[in-house]
Amino acid sequence: MIKRIGKYTIKFLDEPLISSYSSVVGKLEGEGPLKEGFDKIIYDSHAMKNTFEEAESHFQQEAVSLALSKWGGKAEDADFIFAGDLLNQCMASSFGVKAFNIPFLGQYGACSTSAQSLIMAAAFIESKAAKVALAVTSSHFCSAERQFRFPLEYGGVRTPTAQRTVTGAGAFVLESAENPAKSVKSPLLCPKISMATVGKIVDLGVTDANNMGAAMAPAAADTLKTFFDDTGKSPTDYDMIFTGDLGKVGSKLLYELMNEKGYNIKENHKDCGLMIYDMNTQDVHAGGSGCGCGACTLSAHILPKLSTGEYQKVLYMATGALMSSTSSTQGATIPSVAHLVELKGAKG
Amino acid sequence: MIKRIGKYTIKFLDEPLISSYSSVVGKLEGEGPLKEGFDKIIYDSHAMKNTFEEAESHFQQEAVSLALSKWGGKAEDADFIFAGDLLNQCMASSFGVKAFNIPFLGQYGACSTSAQSLIMAAAFIESKAAKVALAVTSSHFCSAERQFRFPLEYGGVRTPTAQRTVTGAGAFVLESAENPAKSVKSPLLCPKISMATVGKIVDLGVTDANNMGAAMAPAAADTLKTFFDDTGKSPTDYDMIFTGDLGKVGSKLLYELMNEKGYNIKENHKDCGLMIYDMNTQDVHAGGSGCGCGACTLSAHILPKLSTGEYQKVLYMATGALMSSTSSTQGATIPSVAHLVELKGAKG
Repeated sequence: MIKRIGKYTIKFLDEPLISSYSSVVGKLEGEGPLKEGFDKIIYDSHAMKNTFEEAESHFQQEAVSLALSKWGGKAEDADFIFAGDLLNQCMASSFGVKAFNIPFLGQYGACSTSAQSLIMAAAFIESKAAKVALAVTSSHFCSAERQFRFPLEYGGVRTPTAQRTVTGAGAFVLESAENPAKSVKSPLLCPKISMATVGKIVDLGVTDANNMGAAMAPAAADTLKTFFDDTGKSPTDYDMIFTGDLGKVGSKLLYELMNEKGYNIKENHKDCGLMIYDMNTQDVHAGGSGCGCGACTLSAHILPKLSTGEYQKVLYMATGALMSSTSSTQGATIPSVAHLVELKGAKG
Repeated sequence: MIKRIGKYTIKFLDEPLISSYSSVVGKLEGEGPLKEGFDKIIYDSHAMKNTFEEAESHFQQEAVSLALSKWGGKAEDADFIFAGDLLNQCMASSFGVKAFNIPFLGQYGACSTSAQSLIMAAAFIESKAAKVALAVTSSHFCSAERQFRFPLEYGGVRTPTAQRTVTGAGAFVLESAENPAKSVKSPLLCPKISMATVGKIVDLGVTDANNMGAAMAPAAADTLKTFFDDTGKSPTDYDMIFTGDLGKVGSKLLYELMNEKGYNIKENHKDCGLMIYDMNTQDVHAGGSGCGCGACTLSAHILPKLSTGEYQKVLYMATGALMSSTSSTQGATIPSVAHLVELKGAKG
């Protein structure tokens, strides 16, 4: 069952377990600081497929397969799969997960989809609609560049504020804490989802598709402030506050916006977009982005540290720039949204 | 709380109310057989906006506004909005609903999104995550044609199997039956959502974007058969079985596929794509389609008849062709999905 806290926040009373998780990334991500944490690196950005879109579907399929096998179960044990990506009509998801034959609910929140799909899975478990629900999200540098900006062959010079779409997919197995699968030997060591705040769309008029950090930071500040207001919590209640992919520009703006609201989050904030690449040696401009950025960092870094008890309580907030490949060319603004989940560790 | 029935079906034990609904359609739809049921007809396909995409957002905004005012409440009374459409990155939704400032969860299931968003809203209410949840979906002939097929200016001749994307948006207010808003004077007369089956992705290899009926019919048959298997119900238990937008070709295929499975549904089946237009006098080839087709027919025809008691129990199954504007040009197949809801009327 779920309890509403304050005006917008929801509390998962049974605290669904994230009992398995996986990440599959591309070459550049596999050379970055989180390389030890990824389950699989696919070095060929085409993944031996004909198109980048098919390759992205393959990443998603691999991530789900790995999450299921690490969990010790099969696709048929899952009641629902919540899947999303950045491509037109979420095609990486529909093509990526169709082979699993699991009831499918496509999600779209741009890069916020990684948190959104976790919230969906957790809500379905709390309502008893599902015992086991999967969540998976992906992005791919090559499919995203040509869709949202320029085809790679054009060789366009990227601006300093541009973020690099992460090539990768992260998948998560969520299940009821009451009666976890037998394969989960130590449910006590599984990270849990305890609260969530679903964001409202915020649009301050940014139109530059090469500066998504600026578009998303106000949405992130809005959701984070809402969560603190609703729960009475403050930044120091958490080992770390992770944002999905604000990058350099967006993170700095988030600090300023939160300062204005009376919160200093700088001391215990990390952005997945700045963690997944080495910002000194890897040429990624303002950092990483994409549905895969937060999902892979969550899987490779955050959840393992929650499992070992290194972190006891963290916030994970994924931010999404809701621009479209059509709206950008029409000069429209970039509406943004941020969804937040509170995660508890083994001792949380 | 939700109870699982059989392998895939879920039962909403509190039976959330659909306590308000609205439909906003374009000129051609407003000249069709359901004209008396629509809340608003917008005669200008640009809706005085600069682009067809902005126009579609406007349709969605209007539908939500109307559903809220018919309900007697305000946007701030809604805990979540589940919204979706067919455009790249669901832009009609993000631009269409941003002004309402309601926590936003974007949904993508192509034309199946109308049923998907109802299922989401109902599940959130059953879990107690929401007291009130909105669901809205839209489509627009002009934005869909140029995105999925050809720009209108090209003047391409459409094939006999092609369906016409409905220009329209349908919005729904769902709330807990336990404690409905004071504005709902007769909760007993509100239609209720009682069960749902979320579909699996079915892909039999159809690649023709001008024959979506053929792509979607196998998914529809799969979900409908699953529902009957799970619940022990049969077609005659329902006043009517509505499909979202199979059109002429898809409906015929559905009859054949269901016959093979031992069910005759022909006698009490109607397809929204064949109801929203006059198939004799309006030039729509194989019928209507799009997220707006099922949603507007549900709002203009099905729910009113459930409210008056003319129908007591119906199935509404929305079907979606999960092709993308990119995958079509790459020659990929059209994976499809169908989501089903059981709706009960005033005396159901």
